[in-house]
Amino acid sequence: MEKLFVIKIGGNVIDSEDSLRSFLKDFSAIEGKKILIHGGGKIATKIGEQLGLESKYINGRRITDDATIDLVTMVYGGLVNKKIIAQLQALQCNAIGLTGADGNIIPATKRPVKEVDFGWVGDIESSKLKVESLMLLLEAGLVPVFAPLTHDGQGHILNTNADTIASTLAVALSSLYDVRLIYCFEKKGVLESVDDDNSVIKLINKQTYQQLLNEQRLFAGILPKIDNAFAAIDAGVKEVLVGDAKDLIQNTTDKTSGTLFIQ
Amino acid sequence: MEKLFVIKIGGNVIDSEDSLRSFLKDFSAIEGKKILIHGGGKIATKIGEQLGLESKYINGRRITDDATIDLVTMVYGGLVNKKIIAQLQALQCNAIGLTGADGNIIPATKRPVKEVDFGWVGDIESSKLKVESLMLLLEAGLVPVFAPLTHDGQGHILNTNADTIASTLAVALSSLYDVRLIYCFEKKGVLESVDDDNSVIKLINKQTYQQLLNEQRLFAGILPKIDNAFAAIDAGVKEVLVGDAKDLIQNTTDKTSGTLFIQ
Repeated sequence: MEKLFVIKIGGNVIDSEDSLRSFLKDFSAIEGKKILIHGGGKIATKIGEQLGLESKYINGRRITDDATIDLVTMVYGGLVNKKIIAQLQALQCNAIGLTGADGNIIPATKRPVKEVDFGWVGDIESSKLKVESLMLLLEAGLVPVFAPLTHDGQGHILNTNADTIASTLAVALSSLYDVRLIYCFEKKGVLESVDDDNSVIKLINKQTYQQLLNEQRLFAGILPKIDNAFAAIDAGVKEVLVGDAKDLIQNTTDKTSGTLFIQ
Repeated sequence: MEKLFVIKIGGNVIDSEDSLRSFLKDFSAIEGKKILIHGGGKIATKIGEQLGLESKYINGRRITDDATIDLVTMVYGGLVNKKIIAQLQALQCNAIGLTGADGNIIPATKRPVKEVDFGWVGDIESSKLKVESLMLLLEAGLVPVFAPLTHDGQGHILNTNADTIASTLAVALSSLYDVRLIYCFEKKGVLESVDDDNSVIKLINKQTYQQLLNEQRLFAGILPKIDNAFAAIDAGVKEVLVGDAKDLIQNTTDKTSGTLFIQ
């Protein structure tokens, strides 16, 4: 099967114009098929403050009320996404900006209210993903770039975690492509010593993961990320890589510098 | 050739939630291939004011400075475009939201500075339009919805008149489809008496246009719109229709209620 890179960048890359420019240059240089998913960054909060909106939190989790969904639709779906597209086009990368509403690619449902009403937050309906629309774009040589937004099929845009969009798309496309799902974050990879940036564990499979757990050699904060990686692998994704955005190009090769997760 | 409707709506439809909902319901009911181009509406000005931006004008024409292009990228490319997409999806219309930067469909150049620097305003480079990307989407059953934004190929989004985008796309697609270009505005059509909404001139060809001009039966304000309509027709568009957004469905049939322009 052909290789496909599904790459997620977060706020730390988005928030710095220099980091973003440098990342997009590297991203555009990756040969073959690729998809980018971007988070929002702090700019939504900044513009929200300028608009006089107050961020609302319950138990430390942000609530997406009416004003907030309009804000993130503007900022993530408009400002951030289209700036990325214009820059990629300047790098001869034929990018097309999307939300999950476009082409109905990522249908979702508003998260059910239990103890907390998170507002306009969407949980993806994986079984209803329109993989064929995405494939059509990929096969035409287009490079899809997703903002972290989905929709409920009833006329509302929903706020959806970019990591979840990335893994869901990676899983859905894994029957068609050899997918490497790359999460860019602020470390070079999973570290054996939290304080030593050079202690990257280069390869983790399920067996070594169990050993690392048994020997308590992993920082607790990283465990959810690892569990997500293996969840994607169990669902069909060939490889998951966690690494620094600066090492993107190397992390698309066989000689990865980040942490590669395999079955 | 297959029929294609290229339909432009302006601020008066965008600014009213009820008008927009009703328009989108009609738009979704049109059978066959169609493209929507939307203007911006007053919401950009409103959000700009909330952000403390002042609209700048020279000789009555708006200047798109750095802050303004970010504003319209957010509002037109994000908020307005994605709300339309989510609503169309709820109506089972498989819409995909685009700017001219997406898929490099509408390359433009920043308007050259002569007496006035209009800022980040784009003049479309018609010869470089990526008609094949647009055709790919249309042939896959997707319904492209354009915000009035293009790009300069050097990493910048540009503000571009929605009427011009509509006519340029209509012309470019006229070798592939029988295009009817529909401009929705606030009147039922070109009126013979400005004060009488029922005095719509149903059909104008070049010969009758000359007669109407000779007999001074047209309001001067409408002449640029008519000249644009004939420019599109001279460039290959089969029919141009000017009519009320409320009459959209009728204006896609043979029994139009607006003003139909033909060769």
